[in-house]
Amino acid sequence: MALLYVALLHFPVYDKNGAVVTSAVTHMDIHDIARSGRTFGVRRFYIVTPVGALRDLAGRILRHWGTGHGAEYNRTRKDALEIVRLTEDLDDTIIDVEHDAGAPPLLLVTSARTRRPTITYGGLRRLIRDGVRPLLVLFGTGWGLTEEVIGRADHLLPAITGIDTYNHLSVRTAAGIILDRVCGARDELEEART
Amino acid sequence: MALLYVALLHFPVYDKNGAVVTSAVTHMDIHDIARSGRTFGVRRFYIVTPVGALRDLAGRILRHWGTGHGAEYNRTRKDALEIVRLTEDLDDTIIDVEHDAGAPPLLLVTSARTRRPTITYGGLRRLIRDGVRPLLVLFGTGWGLTEEVIGRADHLLPAITGIDTYNHLSVRTAAGIILDRVCGARDELEEART
Repeated sequence: MALLYVALLHFPVYDKNGAVVTSAVTHMDIHDIARSGRTFGVRRFYIVTPVGALRDLAGRILRHWGTGHGAEYNRTRKDALEIVRLTEDLDDTIIDVEHDAGAPPLLLVTSARTRRPTITYGGLRRLIRDGVRPLLVLFGTGWGLTEEVIGRADHLLPAITGIDTYNHLSVRTAAGIILDRVCGARDELEEART
Repeated sequence: MALLYVALLHFPVYDKNGAVVTSAVTHMDIHDIARSGRTFGVRRFYIVTPVGALRDLAGRILRHWGTGHGAEYNRTRKDALEIVRLTEDLDDTIIDVEHDAGAPPLLLVTSARTRRPTITYGGLRRLIRDGVRPLLVLFGTGWGLTEEVIGRADHLLPAITGIDTYNHLSVRTAAGIILDRVCGARDELEEART
């Protein structure tokens, strides 16, 4: 099995007008994606922001739930947040993955705007199963990852769609769905093949 | 196609000690599940709480984003929140579904504690495709739906699991994953069958 990593980038991302911005760190993103990551076997979940004050704030949240009263109050939250790491940018994140996994990761990106995916979710499932390289899946906050980041990816995953063209999922939900698609227990997915 | 409805119950649910409580309405639940519902074709998403003040508050949020400045500022949020309804309890919710769909709904529940599911996700996908009865999927806040509510369900869905027994997903994420499993675009799911 390949080691699986997830990163949530707060820079560089687009705002609603297409400008490249740094977005704020949202507490609910940390908690929800950490819980999904812990459920689906993600080894580390990176909160990536160049803003030192926001990394410090996130670090205080992690310490609150990781030790002392918070850890006693909510054990499942502590277990989830143990996979969270704080990094400054994508390059630092890649270095940390390489240091942890012993090899540089393949970069995968997902975007609601993806028009020409280069890998399917089944393909990603096979990459995990075959385990040749560690895998780092990138998510963007705000209105999504910039073209510059997308251009660095080894693979583009398909956009998640339902009945029509509306696909404005929260990044928290999108991360959960994608992890379920590639790491969810197989029995139920197999049953869905009718 | 069967009409699909989702309800998020804030009573009766368990707290962390197993007591039956009324939980507070969380804004992020409204936004995230509305977005997932809108993406995957849910006809109405019910916020169910017996607390009138919380229904009023949720109503103000919906009006803010549904009209005037909020609607102009974020069109995709307005589109998502249009499917939200506020109800007092499960019975009122069932009546509203029956009024809208013309037939009483089948009740489906999902719980991280489900040990003996009575339907698979593929089975639910078939129920939607075959379209005999409207379907109402119930989610619980806090530490989950009470046994009393679960006992009223026509079907229990399997718990969502990943690599081990940890399955403490946020209800927002769980709702998104379940909707993707039963309504997500098929091409990618088909690709996952290897």
